[in-house]
Amino acid sequence: MAGRSVSAQETDKAIESKVKHLLSQMTLEEKVGQMTQVDFSVIGAPVSGDEYSDGAIDQAKLEDALIKHHVGSILNAPSIPNIKAQPVDTWRKIMRTLQDTTAKTRLKIPVIYGIDAIHGATYTENSVLFPQAINMAATFNPELSFKEGEITAREVRVSGLQWNFSPVMDIGRQPLWPRLWETYGEDVHLATAMGESYIKGHQGNDFSAADKAPTCLKHYVGYSYPLNGKDRTPAWIGERMLREYFLPTFAAGVKAGAPTVMINSAEVDGIPGHANYQYLTTILRGELGFKGFTVSDWEDIKRLYTRDKMAASPKEAVKIAVMAGVDMSMVPFDFSFYDLLVELAKSGEVPLSRINEAVSRILKVKYQAGLFDPKPLPVVEDNFAAPEAIETSRQAARESIVLAKNDRNILPLKKDAKILLTGPTANLLSVLNGGWTITWQGSAENLYPQDKLTVLEALQRKSTGKVTYIGGDSFNAPIDIQKVVDEAKNHDVILLSLGENTYTETPGNIESLNIDQAQVDLANAAIATGKPVVLLTLGGRPRIITSIAMRASGVILAFLPGMEGGEAIADILYGDYNPDGKLPISYPRNTNAITPYDYKPTESFDVNFYTPLYPFGHGLSYTSFETSGLKVAKDKVRMGENISVTVNVKNTGALKGKESVLLYINDVVASVTRPNKQLKAFKKVELNPGQTESLSFTLTPQDLSFIGVDLKRVVEPGDFKVMVGNETVGFTVTK
Amino acid sequence: MAGRSVSAQETDKAIESKVKHLLSQMTLEEKVGQMTQVDFSVIGAPVSGDEYSDGAIDQAKLEDALIKHHVGSILNAPSIPNIKAQPVDTWRKIMRTLQDTTAKTRLKIPVIYGIDAIHGATYTENSVLFPQAINMAATFNPELSFKEGEITAREVRVSGLQWNFSPVMDIGRQPLWPRLWETYGEDVHLATAMGESYIKGHQGNDFSAADKAPTCLKHYVGYSYPLNGKDRTPAWIGERMLREYFLPTFAAGVKAGAPTVMINSAEVDGIPGHANYQYLTTILRGELGFKGFTVSDWEDIKRLYTRDKMAASPKEAVKIAVMAGVDMSMVPFDFSFYDLLVELAKSGEVPLSRINEAVSRILKVKYQAGLFDPKPLPVVEDNFAAPEAIETSRQAARESIVLAKNDRNILPLKKDAKILLTGPTANLLSVLNGGWTITWQGSAENLYPQDKLTVLEALQRKSTGKVTYIGGDSFNAPIDIQKVVDEAKNHDVILLSLGENTYTETPGNIESLNIDQAQVDLANAAIATGKPVVLLTLGGRPRIITSIAMRASGVILAFLPGMEGGEAIADILYGDYNPDGKLPISYPRNTNAITPYDYKPTESFDVNFYTPLYPFGHGLSYTSFETSGLKVAKDKVRMGENISVTVNVKNTGALKGKESVLLYINDVVASVTRPNKQLKAFKKVELNPGQTESLSFTLTPQDLSFIGVDLKRVVEPGDFKVMVGNETVGFTVTK
Repeated sequence: MAGRSVSAQETDKAIESKVKHLLSQMTLEEKVGQMTQVDFSVIGAPVSGDEYSDGAIDQAKLEDALIKHHVGSILNAPSIPNIKAQPVDTWRKIMRTLQDTTAKTRLKIPVIYGIDAIHGATYTENSVLFPQAINMAATFNPELSFKEGEITAREVRVSGLQWNFSPVMDIGRQPLWPRLWETYGEDVHLATAMGESYIKGHQGNDFSAADKAPTCLKHYVGYSYPLNGKDRTPAWIGERMLREYFLPTFAAGVKAGAPTVMINSAEVDGIPGHANYQYLTTILRGELGFKGFTVSDWEDIKRLYTRDKMAASPKEAVKIAVMAGVDMSMVPFDFSFYDLLVELAKSGEVPLSRINEAVSRILKVKYQAGLFDPKPLPVVEDNFAAPEAIETSRQAARESIVLAKNDRNILPLKKDAKILLTGPTANLLSVLNGGWTITWQGSAENLYPQDKLTVLEALQRKSTGKVTYIGGDSFNAPIDIQKVVDEAKNHDVILLSLGENTYTETPGNIESLNIDQAQVDLANAAIATGKPVVLLTLGGRPRIITSIAMRASGVILAFLPGMEGGEAIADILYGDYNPDGKLPISYPRNTNAITPYDYKPTESFDVNFYTPLYPFGHGLSYTSFETSGLKVAKDKVRMGENISVTVNVKNTGALKGKESVLLYINDVVASVTRPNKQLKAFKKVELNPGQTESLSFTLTPQDLSFIGVDLKRVVEPGDFKVMVGNETVGFTVTK
Repeated sequence: MAGRSVSAQETDKAIESKVKHLLSQMTLEEKVGQMTQVDFSVIGAPVSGDEYSDGAIDQAKLEDALIKHHVGSILNAPSIPNIKAQPVDTWRKIMRTLQDTTAKTRLKIPVIYGIDAIHGATYTENSVLFPQAINMAATFNPELSFKEGEITAREVRVSGLQWNFSPVMDIGRQPLWPRLWETYGEDVHLATAMGESYIKGHQGNDFSAADKAPTCLKHYVGYSYPLNGKDRTPAWIGERMLREYFLPTFAAGVKAGAPTVMINSAEVDGIPGHANYQYLTTILRGELGFKGFTVSDWEDIKRLYTRDKMAASPKEAVKIAVMAGVDMSMVPFDFSFYDLLVELAKSGEVPLSRINEAVSRILKVKYQAGLFDPKPLPVVEDNFAAPEAIETSRQAARESIVLAKNDRNILPLKKDAKILLTGPTANLLSVLNGGWTITWQGSAENLYPQDKLTVLEALQRKSTGKVTYIGGDSFNAPIDIQKVVDEAKNHDVILLSLGENTYTETPGNIESLNIDQAQVDLANAAIATGKPVVLLTLGGRPRIITSIAMRASGVILAFLPGMEGGEAIADILYGDYNPDGKLPISYPRNTNAITPYDYKPTESFDVNFYTPLYPFGHGLSYTSFETSGLKVAKDKVRMGENISVTVNVKNTGALKGKESVLLYINDVVASVTRPNKQLKAFKKVELNPGQTESLSFTLTPQDLSFIGVDLKRVVEPGDFKVMVGNETVGFTVTK
């Protein structure tokens, strides 16, 4: 791990020697057990059938897993019947039971317990649940991502859990994909900055600390770009595009110290992620210098046989995956991987050296995480759901909400305004949070905390006027449109709360980006009343809202702002917070008009095809900002030199507010076509009315580079443009 | 060119020696002139401004081009003001003028005149205009493609023209792309078979024959697969996918003897087609063994500077393109290419050897085409718009029309049925033909031949009952829906003729696959009348018709059946022809559900995502067919052996008809994921009621191969499945 201190390097050396010593004592079976990860249900005590009670462990099963099969890792929450969040004390009890049983094993190697703590400690009841990643990106505030990492790690550790399957470092350039919202959006630089900060907050300098935990970069690599938009389906990427758009975030994550990587469940260019030696070994190890361990995604080694037909048997599937570079198998329901890999090792089909390599990597991370010498768990009080942590989540939510349109300053609303609120997302907590919230799909509204506020409840709390709500009984239940029309005349404004129900992975697949027809009908009727309409959207994808947005007076794109999202939305609607979120994706105008902002020259020649409803970086404020005086320190720089750029940003309006200043570059002539612009730096500043700040940026040679004709990263001498706001300046790189 | 006879090889030798001799006499300027292709407007006599009169040549301009600039090639029809079809005599006159002027040049090297004769001699008035390529593919009848090639070549030659920019060998897997209909659909095998046959018909054994002409494979390579569906925008393909899906048709075209290749106007993986040395030289020459010449597409060398910013100047653009492997530049409006390449050669920046190579290739094709020793043009009578040729086009149209739905045998209609015909495509010839018909966009309805029949006219001619037509004044003019509703009660059936207006290239770009809302409204009203509705669609792309098709009794997908399409549609509607067309693409159910039929295992695991409205290969008949007795000759074959497959097909209905029997294979386990099935053979047979025919197919090792992990074509031993109809049989390939 690059950038580790001298003492950390000494620790690394000490750990290496411990790993070596331990490995030398291990039997083949003990080694293969370390590479095996099973689901909680394998050790859980069933209540009935496949249902597992809260945290109840079947001791015999646990000993079968840990003592007989030497299992090295467990994942997931108990399921009753669906996997769901547990009280923090239940988790602590589970972890004690695991430690006690580990103590009975021959070598006492600790289990590492992994969890999808996607936007906070998802599977611990009442944890602080942040805005989802697409929202975190919209804040353009890596400091908030750092704090999310800190708070998540602490709450994961308070729960006794030890390893977080987060962050998603996939780039979100396929808006149909049902996990778009788990990404930091379509831009490589932004996603890198947000992901790096998250990792640093989550791990600190030393993730053996009591309130820190290892992260897991996922889903290496190309998972986010399915051709047809369906989850876990083929991507076509090609090596140049892989290196240009998909590898850099993972390279940054490795450099930031993430010690584990989860693998792409789907396939790229015909090769499943779990069978791709070039990606998992040649590039990840050889080029990116990754020293940690890789873990399969859910059942994906089996699927090389059952689904992808790469293997003629389950055993061959294990061989292919392990030889490609998979170190740990998320099996997850049985010991088949264990049995088959033991057989393969005994027959010599998988060399022991490969197993030693995988196990060494796993043990090393366990040592680094302090699992062999566990510190006492942080106390619950002060460390879990702390008021400051909740306030941080609320601030992140505020900064993540995009004010996209505000005709004639319809917003903010007066506190005494008479608001007619309608739409399927107006009175649900689930739609603020999305998938991976309390349950996998996030849709169990009845399990959501009672003290959190929906949009309706948050408005009601702040309003000194009237908030009338006309909703359906559930997300897709019909809303009484006639009632909305009748009530409109008694109100000043109609607030339409539209969007998507919760989802992730396959259940979230769609066949059209169009928003539901029922919502269009509701919107058309509301607009036809002649009352001003403010459109609020919630959901993880940019569903097509063009015809509604064109006729609405105001548009707020809130995506998935998390558990404090209702209050954050109310803060913005009433002007208690001045919005500053900016779009981390291009919001398409129509179903088949999907073009990211960093389009190529062929996409704007004669006709400009980049005509989104709202472009990348778009977001309004209740005040106004101007940038001016854009300057580069030198208009000629030598190859390899850094470039200093300065620009002034001024609050030209009447309200205090924050502004994210985005710096783009363009390589004017190059041997591979270059995007019209690419984000290379950004800074967010808070300014009082009339206040000006001068911002400095440093562009590095890396920022000027691209993947050349020969598939290697290169900087070519010649002219570059730097663009901020409406200004463009140039410089020339000389040999 | 592979497969040429001994005498052809002798001719090749003789030609080589002639080329060598001629080249040795040429000045640099004469050589560079050979590489220059200009538009007709460069030699045309303007009537006013930029408008050029019918075939009138400005002799001074012509001499400037041919004598001063040594121009080797001219393209396109005269423009008044838009490029449009000319009378055959005008063309013959133009060609005589060109020959007379060539005779005044020092070396008397003939010009080669190229034209987009896409579906017949597009730019000659009253030529036989065939169904477009997507329809030809729907016939599953390569013999018809062969005949189209024969007839097109003859009519091109009767017009004095010498070179046809056809066929399109791009694979049509991106339904948004406004040139989808110029392809032979989404399947590699089908496109290969149709394209090969076209070339063989067009060129014969020797394209110096008076009624033959050289073809041009286009658009090499990857042009058809723009990520966002817009014409001339970036594709992401990657080397494996390129070799699996996009190169094979071009390889087959080269093998079939096509002596010219036109280049992809867009970019693949960041490299513009015209700058791609790997594609144009390493692969096209080195691997595919192409010996002819490459020609740029429209202005595309300039665009390496003006658009793609690959070059810092127009001169550098010329250098990049020529050095990448472009032999001839479709400049097209000036002599800039000529001037710049002369300069580059004089300064040594482009070596003379490269120029000699390009010129040799061009001269060789001119010799092969017999241009140095021109035969008298075929006489117009008997060779142009001959009744048999028109009948062939009509038969192709009949075989290209897909009967997609026929509930309770709503079709065929009785001749005395009372038909209410409505919809924007019911009474236009243009919408039967699409782009590249008389004009570039094909939309000049007033220029269409008076004696050809629209759908309305063709129905009227056959009907013994009543055909009522309610249309708009033009394609997008509103139709009086109330009148349709009122009239419905007086009719037996409503025939809804919907679809697209004509287009090609950029003007055909769309933002949504949805069909126009006005057409949906018309359809909804028609269906609401309760009268049975038959939906007929015309247009080049599968626009979304799901909600209409689900409620219609009958659905006919006619795409672009050409100038005889109106009659062919009437033939089918009335049962004068028993339909046998099958879809050469998957017809999507919704805007963002785009998956070709040869999907991967990840696309049908747990949930099958291949849920088109109509699958690839779908097409009904007025009779019924059954296949049975599918057998492979041996269930074990050695690597490298052919596999014989037999199957019986029976007409189980009451009418004579044709059936295309499609044979698919699946490689059960492979080191790169394999499609669920891939078409590898097909045969079309005509059967009387009760008649059975036994069909034999031979699968070759090539049919079993795929592009392996190392990007090389490979056959792996193991199990294969063969699928025909509802039957599957297996065989095993052993080492």
